[in-house]
Amino acid sequence: MITSKDNELIKETVKLIKSVKARKDKRLFVAEGLRLCRDAAESGAHIVTFLYTKQAEEKNSEDLAFIRSVADRSDEISCELYNKISDTNSPQGFLCVIDTRLNTVMTEIKKGGKYVALENIQDPSNLGTILRTAEALGIDGVILSRDCCDIYSPKVVRGSMGAVFRLPFMQKDEFTSWIRELTKSGINTYASTPHEAENISRMDFSGGGIMLIGNEGNGLKNETIAACTGRVKIPMLGRAESLNAAAAAAILMYELMNHSGRG
Amino acid sequence: MITSKDNELIKETVKLIKSVKARKDKRLFVAEGLRLCRDAAESGAHIVTFLYTKQAEEKNSEDLAFIRSVADRSDEISCELYNKISDTNSPQGFLCVIDTRLNTVMTEIKKGGKYVALENIQDPSNLGTILRTAEALGIDGVILSRDCCDIYSPKVVRGSMGAVFRLPFMQKDEFTSWIRELTKSGINTYASTPHEAENISRMDFSGGGIMLIGNEGNGLKNETIAACTGRVKIPMLGRAESLNAAAAAAILMYELMNHSGRG
Repeated sequence: MITSKDNELIKETVKLIKSVKARKDKRLFVAEGLRLCRDAAESGAHIVTFLYTKQAEEKNSEDLAFIRSVADRSDEISCELYNKISDTNSPQGFLCVIDTRLNTVMTEIKKGGKYVALENIQDPSNLGTILRTAEALGIDGVILSRDCCDIYSPKVVRGSMGAVFRLPFMQKDEFTSWIRELTKSGINTYASTPHEAENISRMDFSGGGIMLIGNEGNGLKNETIAACTGRVKIPMLGRAESLNAAAAAAILMYELMNHSGRG
Repeated sequence: MITSKDNELIKETVKLIKSVKARKDKRLFVAEGLRLCRDAAESGAHIVTFLYTKQAEEKNSEDLAFIRSVADRSDEISCELYNKISDTNSPQGFLCVIDTRLNTVMTEIKKGGKYVALENIQDPSNLGTILRTAEALGIDGVILSRDCCDIYSPKVVRGSMGAVFRLPFMQKDEFTSWIRELTKSGINTYASTPHEAENISRMDFSGGGIMLIGNEGNGLKNETIAACTGRVKIPMLGRAESLNAAAAAAILMYELMNHSGRG
């Protein structure tokens, strides 16, 4: 049983919880809690290390045995140490270190498919919620610009309710020029913006395409909007620019998925 | 200038920030930050006390003068004391104590109007976001069951981005029987539930009505669902029950407001 925070495995795990750089360098991230760890195991994620407490084993022995059966390595750690390293408010004693090279990496955009592309989303809670909503609504995949917050931060992983293990996604360095190329190749690209845009409730999305959503405060960059096929907006009767990014994204993705065949 | 946390006004303000009971007893609540305090003043809220720091006055003198001009009473407090009592991460030195008897209290449901009714919403962030979304989309009013979290908690007020000052709302003790009476009187009442419900994207909401949204974990109570005219669900292709309450509410309210005239 591991009891010391000077243990090498513990030191690395803490780094992965706290540091984006450590996650990028090691290509590993952390998921905590019974539900998320079971989700990771069920979703076929590559679990490199599984840490658990005696209390967790006593309380949820079946789930624990299942996660242990798919993990490369499993170690019991003391409850005291677990509570010290945990990033959550009510630690459950389940922690998985997972390879970021998930089998959900998406490499191409299919014509007729329905995608969401996020530019410079900064709030981990928003990103987590958007991923969760995208999965629930059946979005084919998510594209993240390089300046979005880290998809593997504990807050995003938690907020996504495990969608991060299952939802196909890709990250793009040259986001705007990549969008421009897709538009040229005949993929529909829709910039969501309140300015000079069509009312989304009157659109027909039967041809599929990519819904682009921008930064919480500033929206999409002007050059990204210019690179798109069209502009869409959510009809708002109240004060302007008043939707939270995750609420706006829910409506935009819902329309993309469900409303086709309008004249 | 107030500098001591033993000052009676400061003691009462801290209680209003921390305690639901104090807010209910005194019929007062607290809004913090430049934007929210200005929103309160512009929205015609009754500001009983306005507390500000010298730094806030130097940085935003015009806004400060405006808020002071509508407040019953204004006091400068020391920056040190402000930072101690503030509920926010980056205190801006603007704090208003506001009367809960806002002029937004709603007393009746109008036939043809479009409303949202929330049953047992527990997370203040969700409630704040739902209020913000309701205002942006132009919902006519919000009804809260008595077991919802407190609409005047600092987190709800903040998350609502000031919608709490402007959006008509009412609170109902006997929520289920009140809904039953409305249904009988010919108001459309729609229970959102994943079970045996109609796909919301095929509904016609031109007759107006009330969209009911339930608790984050358990949804609406069975007896409340039974009291409604109909049941609606958001079409989900991914894993079941996977939408965050605020994201689901955004889609449900958006449909209620925008989709009419379907066959």
